[in-house]
Amino acid sequence: MTAAATRSEHDLLGDRDVPADAYWGVHTLRATENFPITGTPISAYPHLIEALAAVKEAAARANEELGLLDSEKASAIVAACQEIRDGKLHDQFVVDVVQGGAGTSTNMNANEVVANRALELLGRRKGQYEHLHPNEDVNLGQSTNDVYPTAVKIATVFAVRELLKAMTVLQDSFARKAVEFRDVLKMGRTQLQDAVPMTLGQEFSAYAVMLDEDRSRLAEAVELIHEINLGATAIGTGLNAPAGYAESARRHLAQITGLPLVTAANLVEATQDCGAFVQMSGVLKRIAVKLSKSCNDLRLLSSGPRAGLNEINLPPVQAGSSIMPGKVNPVIPEVVNQVAFEVIGNDVTITMAAEAGQLQLNAFEPIILHSLSESITHLRAACLTLAERCVDGITANTEGLRAAVENSIGLVTALNPYIGYTAATDIAKEALATGRGVAELVLEKGLLPADRLQALLRPEVVAGSGEPQAV
Amino acid sequence: MTAAATRSEHDLLGDRDVPADAYWGVHTLRATENFPITGTPISAYPHLIEALAAVKEAAARANEELGLLDSEKASAIVAACQEIRDGKLHDQFVVDVVQGGAGTSTNMNANEVVANRALELLGRRKGQYEHLHPNEDVNLGQSTNDVYPTAVKIATVFAVRELLKAMTVLQDSFARKAVEFRDVLKMGRTQLQDAVPMTLGQEFSAYAVMLDEDRSRLAEAVELIHEINLGATAIGTGLNAPAGYAESARRHLAQITGLPLVTAANLVEATQDCGAFVQMSGVLKRIAVKLSKSCNDLRLLSSGPRAGLNEINLPPVQAGSSIMPGKVNPVIPEVVNQVAFEVIGNDVTITMAAEAGQLQLNAFEPIILHSLSESITHLRAACLTLAERCVDGITANTEGLRAAVENSIGLVTALNPYIGYTAATDIAKEALATGRGVAELVLEKGLLPADRLQALLRPEVVAGSGEPQAV
Amino acid sequence: MTAAATRSEHDLLGDRDVPADAYWGVHTLRATENFPITGTPISAYPHLIEALAAVKEAAARANEELGLLDSEKASAIVAACQEIRDGKLHDQFVVDVVQGGAGTSTNMNANEVVANRALELLGRRKGQYEHLHPNEDVNLGQSTNDVYPTAVKIATVFAVRELLKAMTVLQDSFARKAVEFRDVLKMGRTQLQDAVPMTLGQEFSAYAVMLDEDRSRLAEAVELIHEINLGATAIGTGLNAPAGYAESARRHLAQITGLPLVTAANLVEATQDCGAFVQMSGVLKRIAVKLSKSCNDLRLLSSGPRAGLNEINLPPVQAGSSIMPGKVNPVIPEVVNQVAFEVIGNDVTITMAAEAGQLQLNAFEPIILHSLSESITHLRAACLTLAERCVDGITANTEGLRAAVENSIGLVTALNPYIGYTAATDIAKEALATGRGVAELVLEKGLLPADRLQALLRPEVVAGSGEPQAV
Amino acid sequence: MTAAATRSEHDLLGDRDVPADAYWGVHTLRATENFPITGTPISAYPHLIEALAAVKEAAARANEELGLLDSEKASAIVAACQEIRDGKLHDQFVVDVVQGGAGTSTNMNANEVVANRALELLGRRKGQYEHLHPNEDVNLGQSTNDVYPTAVKIATVFAVRELLKAMTVLQDSFARKAVEFRDVLKMGRTQLQDAVPMTLGQEFSAYAVMLDEDRSRLAEAVELIHEINLGATAIGTGLNAPAGYAESARRHLAQITGLPLVTAANLVEATQDCGAFVQMSGVLKRIAVKLSKSCNDLRLLSSGPRAGLNEINLPPVQAGSSIMPGKVNPVIPEVVNQVAFEVIGNDVTITMAAEAGQLQLNAFEPIILHSLSESITHLRAACLTLAERCVDGITANTEGLRAAVENSIGLVTALNPYIGYTAATDIAKEALATGRGVAELVLEKGLLPADRLQALLRPEVVAGSGEPQAV
Repeated sequence: MTAAATRSEHDLLGDRDVPADAYWGVHTLRATENFPITGTPISAYPHLIEALAAVKEAAARANEELGLLDSEKASAIVAACQEIRDGKLHDQFVVDVVQGGAGTSTNMNANEVVANRALELLGRRKGQYEHLHPNEDVNLGQSTNDVYPTAVKIATVFAVRELLKAMTVLQDSFARKAVEFRDVLKMGRTQLQDAVPMTLGQEFSAYAVMLDEDRSRLAEAVELIHEINLGATAIGTGLNAPAGYAESARRHLAQITGLPLVTAANLVEATQDCGAFVQMSGVLKRIAVKLSKSCNDLRLLSSGPRAGLNEINLPPVQAGSSIMPGKVNPVIPEVVNQVAFEVIGNDVTITMAAEAGQLQLNAFEPIILHSLSESITHLRAACLTLAERCVDGITANTEGLRAAVENSIGLVTALNPYIGYTAATDIAKEALATGRGVAELVLEKGLLPADRLQALLRPEVVAGSGEPQAV
Repeated sequence: MTAAATRSEHDLLGDRDVPADAYWGVHTLRATENFPITGTPISAYPHLIEALAAVKEAAARANEELGLLDSEKASAIVAACQEIRDGKLHDQFVVDVVQGGAGTSTNMNANEVVANRALELLGRRKGQYEHLHPNEDVNLGQSTNDVYPTAVKIATVFAVRELLKAMTVLQDSFARKAVEFRDVLKMGRTQLQDAVPMTLGQEFSAYAVMLDEDRSRLAEAVELIHEINLGATAIGTGLNAPAGYAESARRHLAQITGLPLVTAANLVEATQDCGAFVQMSGVLKRIAVKLSKSCNDLRLLSSGPRAGLNEINLPPVQAGSSIMPGKVNPVIPEVVNQVAFEVIGNDVTITMAAEAGQLQLNAFEPIILHSLSESITHLRAACLTLAERCVDGITANTEGLRAAVENSIGLVTALNPYIGYTAATDIAKEALATGRGVAELVLEKGLLPADRLQALLRPEVVAGSGEPQAV
Repeated sequence: MTAAATRSEHDLLGDRDVPADAYWGVHTLRATENFPITGTPISAYPHLIEALAAVKEAAARANEELGLLDSEKASAIVAACQEIRDGKLHDQFVVDVVQGGAGTSTNMNANEVVANRALELLGRRKGQYEHLHPNEDVNLGQSTNDVYPTAVKIATVFAVRELLKAMTVLQDSFARKAVEFRDVLKMGRTQLQDAVPMTLGQEFSAYAVMLDEDRSRLAEAVELIHEINLGATAIGTGLNAPAGYAESARRHLAQITGLPLVTAANLVEATQDCGAFVQMSGVLKRIAVKLSKSCNDLRLLSSGPRAGLNEINLPPVQAGSSIMPGKVNPVIPEVVNQVAFEVIGNDVTITMAAEAGQLQLNAFEPIILHSLSESITHLRAACLTLAERCVDGITANTEGLRAAVENSIGLVTALNPYIGYTAATDIAKEALATGRGVAELVLEKGLLPADRLQALLRPEVVAGSGEPQAV
Repeated sequence: MTAAATRSEHDLLGDRDVPADAYWGVHTLRATENFPITGTPISAYPHLIEALAAVKEAAARANEELGLLDSEKASAIVAACQEIRDGKLHDQFVVDVVQGGAGTSTNMNANEVVANRALELLGRRKGQYEHLHPNEDVNLGQSTNDVYPTAVKIATVFAVRELLKAMTVLQDSFARKAVEFRDVLKMGRTQLQDAVPMTLGQEFSAYAVMLDEDRSRLAEAVELIHEINLGATAIGTGLNAPAGYAESARRHLAQITGLPLVTAANLVEATQDCGAFVQMSGVLKRIAVKLSKSCNDLRLLSSGPRAGLNEINLPPVQAGSSIMPGKVNPVIPEVVNQVAFEVIGNDVTITMAAEAGQLQLNAFEPIILHSLSESITHLRAACLTLAERCVDGITANTEGLRAAVENSIGLVTALNPYIGYTAATDIAKEALATGRGVAELVLEKGLLPADRLQALLRPEVVAGSGEPQAV
């Protein structure tokens, strides 16, 4: 590299050369050296980059409005931020997502990229910070401690919105199957033991309802994420941020992002508190738990084809085995299970990071961002894959299901009100021991007349209406 | 024991003798033999016992109303349940809290105790089930699979209400200190490094606000627990429960408990779903995380007395050491930390139990009950102990705190808007290297006139109003 | 209570009355007031009480040996400790198991009980500490910070030994079934899909082998627990413990307990480190994971009786349902699953407590003791219950299992080496689509001669020897 | 893309075009479509790719040796594998690391790449599987169910070896500081309260010893990973693998990798068991816990510079704040803390995945691979960064540390043996209340003569030898 290929920058620790064409500067350089942890740069989190640019733009507009930043500088900063929000310059966000310093390196990376791009827009060269400075101008009135959590929250809101959509896709897929299978009678099971009849439609309806409830919970949790601490500066006292700044910045940020953001009532508390992230992760964990349970069921119901329950068929999406010809495996539910386990593990990571906050700040928000983002995006992918590559193509083995009901001992439960639990228990025991049918034994013992029995044991009656309940 | 000391009872597996004076019967006997796990009987969960009795009473009233149970039997059952709700017969609930069978043993224990007490009230002897039967009468129209989760939910609501009160006590304690310390200036810290000034009142106010928010989240989560599945019977199809039963039982149960209970719209889903428990545990975890963080802070701020931060003094509540004379330790925050760790571990247990549900039922609700109950009651005890034995008696070392602010380098941050980040950085570096004061250096370098500097660096100004923000 | 019913004691905080007949004193009194958390006193942990008494006895013997304690006092202390180790006075250990103070209250409770009993043995009255003092004599040369972890380790070793025995009982139970089922042919499954044949004996043999391996890991982990820090006193520097004390105390303690205890090479490290507990809990978690997996399998294999896999029958141990007559549920495996979830949750609690240690001490060992003890004793109960109430009585549905093999498509895998994966895949697809048998199709297509085919597809050949591999 | 840019391949589900220049084939194509989860291909796990190639090479050599594969094919496969082990073709490993199917897609990706490269070496074109087939030749005698876990284990061993080296680097760094600080006297603390004196060398020695112990545990855990199930094929019965194959393949694999691999005694058990991964993760968690604790200490000891403990100085590695000039934060320990939280969360993920195995296989090994690999590589990066960018540059504030000892109340503990715990307590209380020194008060009260007192209270005496104990 020739001398012209670098420029020199200065910070607290001294001088360093950075590549001449880099929009990032000395602070970013040091961070990349200090945190060679995951190899994943923050550019892999586009929602975060866009959120950072939105915050920087909002701050510049507020500073201009309050007379702290001249219009020329403000306009250049705003223009640079808009470029970033349009997807440009993302490759300049190079610091590792897992970093010490409570997000300082992420904030400084943003300050430097915005400053250098703004300098260019002002007709200057990169690094001519005497004309527009990363800290004194781009970061004016801000601190990492309000910028970073605010950006993480905005990024989280955008990611959750996409997850909500994916959950709706999956819910609709289950709901369609609930309608399709509304007349498919089958044995319900408790504790894996034959219980009483139901319809396959009811079974799939339950999965749809679960998702519907989970979406409600997620929508509630994301509401809490709209509360930001921009204007808090270092510890929530608002030092260096003039009167009116917090409100102006919030207003601009809400306008830029289209989100109904509110400023926390107590900024000292808001600056140290990660409760909303813990809550969000807890809800993601709830979703994971229920998705995993649903996938466990799908794998169980489709077990076989000959030595399993064989109630439903998952659509084959790839050959199942490198050695067993013709084997098809439930690979889509299996990958969803694994995402669920990951989300549950991430919740522990987020919990520990939140608990480790000290005094006026939580320095561990970067790992919270990383884990939360992973949980949300992987859950989204899991929902879409499950809907499109599995649930949509599920078929039922209707005849076998009905035969199992008619052959079941569980039918006797329906006779409890007419012959009593004690007599019904004796019938069940004898049916099990002899392999005979429940109806046959009831008639033989004269417990009920034949026509009455027939009416009571009609599977559709036993299963309730046979209608899947409304989602 | 003489022959008269036992009575013989019969179940699916055969005959067994039970103690003649036991209100429980053969099902309970077998359960105590099958589950010698924790040694803790369900009688240790009085809210659960009372909730079970409430459910049994509501079911009896509904059954009577629908003409399924004659008035004499119904009245006896109701009277027996009321005795239990008054705290009598709790010692008859002897099955281990951690049990297989999805709570069947707990339900059967309740059925047997209610039946035998009702038999006595009817002038019969215990065990004369031909007159009033645990299953056919007490359990009429019910299944463990709707009774048990309904009772667990009601018990949880009652326990959470007590927790909410304890959290209010602790919040008020912190809030009083926030007022008391409103004028105590101190250094704020981020990442354990000196940051900028604030007041001790602001610091304590943050703890109060945290609790306030957590109470809101907990109140929301407990709302979800009011949705019950009574009337679902075995798998949610309502088999054996006549039309109108679910609504009647819910109405009676709401009246008995005073809770605004609602019946789930989809009972198949509600019977298999543990999402509300996962959500509740997630919120308890959030509370634990923040309580633990607050206690970490209290321990840190009171470290010393001479080689620590020594900012505040926790009231001594016991001698701290068996070997170091005069040592006083932060034992109350320490025990709260440990409760928090337990709650976080319990959340993992509850998560795994919820995920393990299969098809129409989750068989693992007993460990959910156990873990959830432990989390709630221990958090409650922790809040009360922390308020009464620690926070109420905290005092501040006001002079030392103020001296630290005046001696701090962090004051220079307040000069950023006037001398710029770059010049301020140079001042800070020199102050650190030389041990000199910020103001002294600024004057020496002629960066600001003395009177202007004095005005800007007044700690009260730097800390904001010095007023704790409203809780 | 009359005046005579109490005695007055004094500590750092002032005077307090304790019941005249209590062996515990003022320190214990304050602790019971400070920590009303779980309601479970340490007397519920008899191994801990015995270990504490062993430590106190060993210390007294070492102090006598080194001339620090006169023989009369030493003998009285030793005699008191022996009474406690014989199971007397356990009811005097009343402090809550979850306590702040790193175990100080547990240590002081022990010091006071030993002192007061020793005073009686010396012909004095309780509370006459001028003749024998809880701190100055019983605790001589000790600190909570070496006494408590040493006692916890000894208690853990004793508890783990009982767990190892219970695991052997379960392993033997599985191994007996492996032999019993050695000729029972069945379909093996991967990903819940029919795979290739095996024997039920092989399946049960795997469970026995798992336990055998787990026992080896547990035995290794418990070895690490034999390293103690007695003699470290407050922080590991051995302050107040004279030369030779640590070695003498260790020697006496090894002799008293019969354990091959060693003193840690670096006592400063040993006093702050909880690594051995984390490791132990990690191994318990491993055991829990595999027990849970085995129980999941047992529940799945016994699903039915008519609409499930119905491969094996678990012995009925109680009626399964309050509403479904004749239903028998896998309640024993279910309770084992729940214990496993608890152990996994406890591991998170222990992990957080260990991570929270600061500088020279971990103050959170009481919750580690509680959680570790719970995990060990519940796992022990689970193993015994599973062996005796479930595995011992399992029977196989031999005929149905063999029929499933003969009807399976998975047999075609055995033909891979002879007809190739591609042709075998075509056969499998056709068998699945038409419901026809693999052999029939191979013959029809002339892929192999009939006698050759018959020899290759003999299930016993396909399953390997049919012999369960050696445990 | 022109028609020539693709080739057509066939599988169970039909025909698909793959890019003509791709070494992967139709199975890989479908997998990339089925699992769009993390976006991270397995090529990001180079140890895994190399291990897969080693397994394929060993199998080919064994098959040739047993006469199952002709020499020409075997040589081509071996040559292709060696190219992969040399780092070529890694970019052809494109399936997502988190996948359903128990690793089938990873195995098929490997089979296809090896086959197509081998075809080229044989002078054929890619896709001409009639000459050398991914399943029938490359996968001969193998199943995903033995190939995948074997490769994961080998990859883990290689990764752990690198972690062990990094831990040694960190241990050495701490040990050097232990020597450097051997004479630096300071106050030891328990429960964050001043306790008794020690040396800073002792403090750092403890960190070195912790790492030394952790390395021993990790080395033990990695031993267990050397047990493989190659030869088990689908479920452990060895179907399709001829006599002698398992031993031959193991021998070749050991030779290729240089690892002392052993074949599990019971292959049915070994094929379904993930215990060794759970154990490994448990040990990684232990390491994480102690690294995190050490970093918590470093952050605490370096708190300040003026309002903190200010005992040590971490080397500044970047500017600490975007708003607070001159602030330097402990960013390196902070990033290590975050890695620790991630490892602890990953352990929960791995635990759940292991528990979810069913019958003869665990289908969730891909997430175990992913999480385990992440934990190992991030811990390695954390150790190196901590050593090189933090610990190596730590300096001590020697004078302030010594002054704190001389001013401490904790010195009185050293007088216990001479004036008794009760009198020492009184001195401590008075010192605390009055701010006076311990020595002064002891003399004033005539408890000890001046020269005796001076000798007893020499800090070096109180701290023990002042020598760091041997690492």
